[in-house]
Amino acid sequence: MATFGDIGVAAGINILSAVVFLVAFAFLRLQPINDRVYFPKWYLMGLRGSPTHSGVYVSKFVNLDCRSYLRFLNWVPDALRMPEPELIGHAGLDSAVYLRIYLLGIKIFVPVALLAWAILVPVNWTNNTLAISEALDKLEYSDIDKLSISNIPYGSKRFWTHIVMAYTFTFWTCYTLRKEYAAVAAMRLQFLASERRRPDQFTVLVRNVPPDLDESVSESVEHFFLVNHPKHYLTHQVVINANKLAKLIKEKKSKQNWLDYYQLKYSRNQSRRPTAKTGFFGLWGEKVDAIDHQTSEIQRLSKAIDEERERVKTDPKCIMPAAFVSFKSRWGAAVCAQTQQSRNPTTWLTEWASEPRDIYWKNLAIPYVSLTVRRLLGIEKKAPFLKRVIELHFIKSFIQGFLPGIILKIFLLVLPSILMMMSKFEGFLSISSLERRSALRYYIFNFVNVFLVSVIAGTAFQQLNSFLHQSANEIPKTIGVAIPMKATFFITYIMIDGWAGVAGEILRLKPLIFFHLRNFFLVKTEKDREEAMDPGSIGFDTGEPRIQLYFLLGLVYAAVTPVLLPFILVFFVLAYVVFRHQIINVYNQQYESAAAFWPDVHGRIISALIFSQLILMGLLSTKGAAQSTPILIVLPVLTISFQRYCKARYEPAFVFYPLQEAMMRDTLERAREPNLNLKAYLQNAYVHPVFKNDEGDDDDFDDKYNEKLEEGVLVPTKRQSRRNTPAPSKTSSTSSQDCP
Amino acid sequence: MATFGDIGVAAGINILSAVVFLVAFAFLRLQPINDRVYFPKWYLMGLRGSPTHSGVYVSKFVNLDCRSYLRFLNWVPDALRMPEPELIGHAGLDSAVYLRIYLLGIKIFVPVALLAWAILVPVNWTNNTLAISEALDKLEYSDIDKLSISNIPYGSKRFWTHIVMAYTFTFWTCYTLRKEYAAVAAMRLQFLASERRRPDQFTVLVRNVPPDLDESVSESVEHFFLVNHPKHYLTHQVVINANKLAKLIKEKKSKQNWLDYYQLKYSRNQSRRPTAKTGFFGLWGEKVDAIDHQTSEIQRLSKAIDEERERVKTDPKCIMPAAFVSFKSRWGAAVCAQTQQSRNPTTWLTEWASEPRDIYWKNLAIPYVSLTVRRLLGIEKKAPFLKRVIELHFIKSFIQGFLPGIILKIFLLVLPSILMMMSKFEGFLSISSLERRSALRYYIFNFVNVFLVSVIAGTAFQQLNSFLHQSANEIPKTIGVAIPMKATFFITYIMIDGWAGVAGEILRLKPLIFFHLRNFFLVKTEKDREEAMDPGSIGFDTGEPRIQLYFLLGLVYAAVTPVLLPFILVFFVLAYVVFRHQIINVYNQQYESAAAFWPDVHGRIISALIFSQLILMGLLSTKGAAQSTPILIVLPVLTISFQRYCKARYEPAFVFYPLQEAMMRDTLERAREPNLNLKAYLQNAYVHPVFKNDEGDDDDFDDKYNEKLEEGVLVPTKRQSRRNTPAPSKTSSTSSQDCP
Repeated sequence: MATFGDIGVAAGINILSAVVFLVAFAFLRLQPINDRVYFPKWYLMGLRGSPTHSGVYVSKFVNLDCRSYLRFLNWVPDALRMPEPELIGHAGLDSAVYLRIYLLGIKIFVPVALLAWAILVPVNWTNNTLAISEALDKLEYSDIDKLSISNIPYGSKRFWTHIVMAYTFTFWTCYTLRKEYAAVAAMRLQFLASERRRPDQFTVLVRNVPPDLDESVSESVEHFFLVNHPKHYLTHQVVINANKLAKLIKEKKSKQNWLDYYQLKYSRNQSRRPTAKTGFFGLWGEKVDAIDHQTSEIQRLSKAIDEERERVKTDPKCIMPAAFVSFKSRWGAAVCAQTQQSRNPTTWLTEWASEPRDIYWKNLAIPYVSLTVRRLLGIEKKAPFLKRVIELHFIKSFIQGFLPGIILKIFLLVLPSILMMMSKFEGFLSISSLERRSALRYYIFNFVNVFLVSVIAGTAFQQLNSFLHQSANEIPKTIGVAIPMKATFFITYIMIDGWAGVAGEILRLKPLIFFHLRNFFLVKTEKDREEAMDPGSIGFDTGEPRIQLYFLLGLVYAAVTPVLLPFILVFFVLAYVVFRHQIINVYNQQYESAAAFWPDVHGRIISALIFSQLILMGLLSTKGAAQSTPILIVLPVLTISFQRYCKARYEPAFVFYPLQEAMMRDTLERAREPNLNLKAYLQNAYVHPVFKNDEGDDDDFDDKYNEKLEEGVLVPTKRQSRRNTPAPSKTSSTSSQDCP
Repeated sequence: MATFGDIGVAAGINILSAVVFLVAFAFLRLQPINDRVYFPKWYLMGLRGSPTHSGVYVSKFVNLDCRSYLRFLNWVPDALRMPEPELIGHAGLDSAVYLRIYLLGIKIFVPVALLAWAILVPVNWTNNTLAISEALDKLEYSDIDKLSISNIPYGSKRFWTHIVMAYTFTFWTCYTLRKEYAAVAAMRLQFLASERRRPDQFTVLVRNVPPDLDESVSESVEHFFLVNHPKHYLTHQVVINANKLAKLIKEKKSKQNWLDYYQLKYSRNQSRRPTAKTGFFGLWGEKVDAIDHQTSEIQRLSKAIDEERERVKTDPKCIMPAAFVSFKSRWGAAVCAQTQQSRNPTTWLTEWASEPRDIYWKNLAIPYVSLTVRRLLGIEKKAPFLKRVIELHFIKSFIQGFLPGIILKIFLLVLPSILMMMSKFEGFLSISSLERRSALRYYIFNFVNVFLVSVIAGTAFQQLNSFLHQSANEIPKTIGVAIPMKATFFITYIMIDGWAGVAGEILRLKPLIFFHLRNFFLVKTEKDREEAMDPGSIGFDTGEPRIQLYFLLGLVYAAVTPVLLPFILVFFVLAYVVFRHQIINVYNQQYESAAAFWPDVHGRIISALIFSQLILMGLLSTKGAAQSTPILIVLPVLTISFQRYCKARYEPAFVFYPLQEAMMRDTLERAREPNLNLKAYLQNAYVHPVFKNDEGDDDDFDDKYNEKLEEGVLVPTKRQSRRNTPAPSKTSSTSSQDCP
């Protein structure tokens, strides 16, 4: 049983490590040599270039300006300064809304924490149940427990306070959630309306085109849409299975990297040509001249690529029965995406096309039938998923007993990749949906393996088997009883994972090391240096489930052990500042789903809320307050009704594109640009990226994206002056001006 | 414990009463005076008129042709002779598909019964568990039980037979269900495609039109659709709250009936003018001259109706924020019905309009907001519904103890009306959806109150309370153990409800009596006589749940006590013949939903199947075959996957109208009738029926329907010769030719 002193020591250690991380970051970010690690977003947007001004050579690598060290905490107000609309323009709506999850945590838990400390803590504290039971049974207890519900005597009338508080917390949470859902839905519609023209606004993905003996897929698609959407059909692009080609190109790129490495090595030390072994990972096999070997390999691959490119274009086996169909108007596309086309509901399936850069091309080549099977397998996997995770826990405790914790740590590190692979196997078509799916899985894993297992293992692990076989209404009781006892454990967890962990995030230790390694071994040109940057992204698939764990802890402990709440609040505030800084300066989001993830976020908070209500019910029923059960059962019912209401009221904004909006934008556009050549604009929008690079360099695709960004209203980029002047952003670039 | 002898006696009694009913029917239907009771459908279609040929006066009432009595069972082949396509033309798709439910029962249970008798019965019979336990414990057992699973010893290897059979039955049921779903979906699409032009193909119901300060609802609707569906919008009809007016008209009609009655009475006995009391139901109050009183009442109501009609047309309070919007093409309507219109998903809600005659006008006047509240109340009602029904069972057993069964019988009689009222309260907009909703409720009631309560009450009623509090996985065991013991009870139930009850249905005792009463007291003109007919309809809300109970019994007992199966088969065959006869000759379906109910039917059979699998699992786990549980758990998982597959594959045909179909029909129509004035056709299609009767008589609406029928291809009606010649139907009117 931890006392305030123990908690204090743990807090001290964790605060110290958090401060160390933050100071290290503050120091490292001021060094020009690390500029590309800590401000890659600005480089990618073309608003910042490599330092070129003359001066002391060393100042290219080390910051010699002492004054700047005095202002080392400046990044905090800088991160908070950029207003939300500019943030949306700068980093996209996904990122801006992602930050609102942290804000939502602050909004929910500030009043909850205040109320709990003002009312529940005194009510809990002014009892002496624990003191008595210590005297009688020699049960030890901690000061933390004195603040929790455990200190209320059996059958006390004081439990009414907790019930009233549970109601208050539920209403406040729902109220905040509703407001937030409404705000995000409005932001999404606003964003979609104000956005520049994008190919996906006009395009629908059609799948399962039925085979036709007389017509090719392309002809079949064209005829079908000319007949059934005669006034709206514009053009289409058949989906091609170019997975092998993409693989070859990737391989060639890797060989090219090795060639660059060897050439650089040779240029630095011309005395001896580098050699390499041809076998597995260069560990054994014949020893050859590395540069010659890689050059010949590249030639071989170039030839294979050319052949494969020809084959893909002509071989009918590579043509999938799917196509991106573009329409003359947003209205036409909205109609096609939302309606059923054919009397056989498994053919001519239409859905909105994702943004070209959001598409996960590899899965497009999966035939629809096998996709259904894959999904079904996915479903069947889901049922025993929980069980497997629990079994896995047995293995875990076994491993913990015999092997060092490092293996568990490695497992936890690779887990997101495993989950992502599972989602990829299920055949989702866009990166955004892949990440959303993985997030759900990771959330379940977190819930079971971090939350449940921690709660039960610490108190009644030996009863796990009986727990699995006991009656359903016993489970909330078992968990409920265990919850207050685990408060100190979770406080420590929050400090390690939520405080020190978040502070570590801003340090970017891994990208820092990798950047300097690459910079030393591979970088020859400015372009190479740009590629060596690894800005990363929000990582919705792991980031969001992590936040959700804190929502869960906060809601579960709010009425039980309010001591936990301030720790959670510190996490939300710290994480908000850190991730706002990262989103502004570092992350480069791969796609823009216009906050399509919000229904998931909302739903998970709701499920955490319902879980917390059930647990409280179970706990109180063991505390001689069984008469409270009928009053508490109302809460989940109300919460579920609330969720149904929200789903009906706000979710359509995330699923459909209202015709009214589509028509409005069409009309506006027609008035503004009467001579727009939409067909030319859409013709090649959905060509597989491997064909896009046919003529130009690999930058082609990025450039296109940049052009589009450039046209944007909110982001004042200056592409002409790229790499020359570090252009000032409107408000937030004070920190970036400090450096060169 | 019933023996074969007991069952034989019960069977004898029930077969006897069934035969009595059938003979009585065969006799009564041949009397010309009952012609309108047993063949109303033909009268309503205008294919049969009152007997007008000269001859002996008495032959107008009594059939004197002895030969026709010899062929009294002729109605059976007659009922079976009409081919399905003609049946669809004659009675609509709903009726034809409704009959397929019985056919489905036959298709499922014939092979199941054969297999069970060939394999399971010998396996069960060749044990002596029951004989031994009789010798040891003096437990009585019946011969029926010797054929059931109870006769297999504890832990026997023979249970594998039952497991294999459970798999076989599941696969066979699913196979048949899938085939049937596919067939019905195809029939529905075929029907929708071959149907003549109907207003609902072009019309969408728009609800929750947002209030506008500057525009009336009508203007607002027109502008919105002119802007957002510019190429497709044609016209619209605002929904008017005319409930008060409809009530007044109904009241006037009732007074008119009384007036007719008194006039007829006076004309028969001119010696004394009839009098009546003005009070409650004519039981007390001032005594007045009945004819004068009713005449003045009618005059008062006529005036009130005229005033109300004016008020409704002008008062803005009577105009609901809803409208029927018609489009220029089916394509336009299909698009509008399937898409979201506005960014606020709670305004401008669109859905397909039902057929005009299917619309439940009264609920159209409910504002959408209050509708949501009503639905929510409906949902909250659903949760404690089961509990209430169980409580109701306590009341029931209480009543049974003290009051005669007649009160329970009355309760069961009024139950469908109560359920229908609940559905009406929930605000469904069409009669078909009201009936579907009531059917669901009635099914749940049947399941709990007839099935579960019978099973548990007979064996462990005193344990009901503990049953409610026991762990979830104990429930299948408790029910499973009780199931074999109740086989004889259900056999008797099937014979009473399923054999005698169905045979009673064909006799139409209630309509027979009512028709003659009305005929005597009210009928003056041919039109009155037509109104005095009460053809009734299928009654989906009570009929379908009743069939479902037999599916449930059949599936549950198939692997447990196969003796039950032949009894169920007899029910299905008998009911099929009887209802086919009734549908051809009697029922007059009020609406045509194109078999929209099939997904419900399918879903309920699936849930019965899953229930039967769980029960078998529970039963076997108490029989020392616990190792079978993992093998049996696969079955519900497979069945649920199958249900998901069916839902994805076939349900869209019942929900959406594919654009391809819509476009095809539009194109065809445009080619055939290039000068069609669609606007004139649709202008008044969705006017409230009370306004339709403004000019013409009440027949107006029916006539319109008949006109539409007349245009049909499949039904060869001859309206010109109506009321004159009893026109022969293609094949099925041999019986009707016998009579005049």
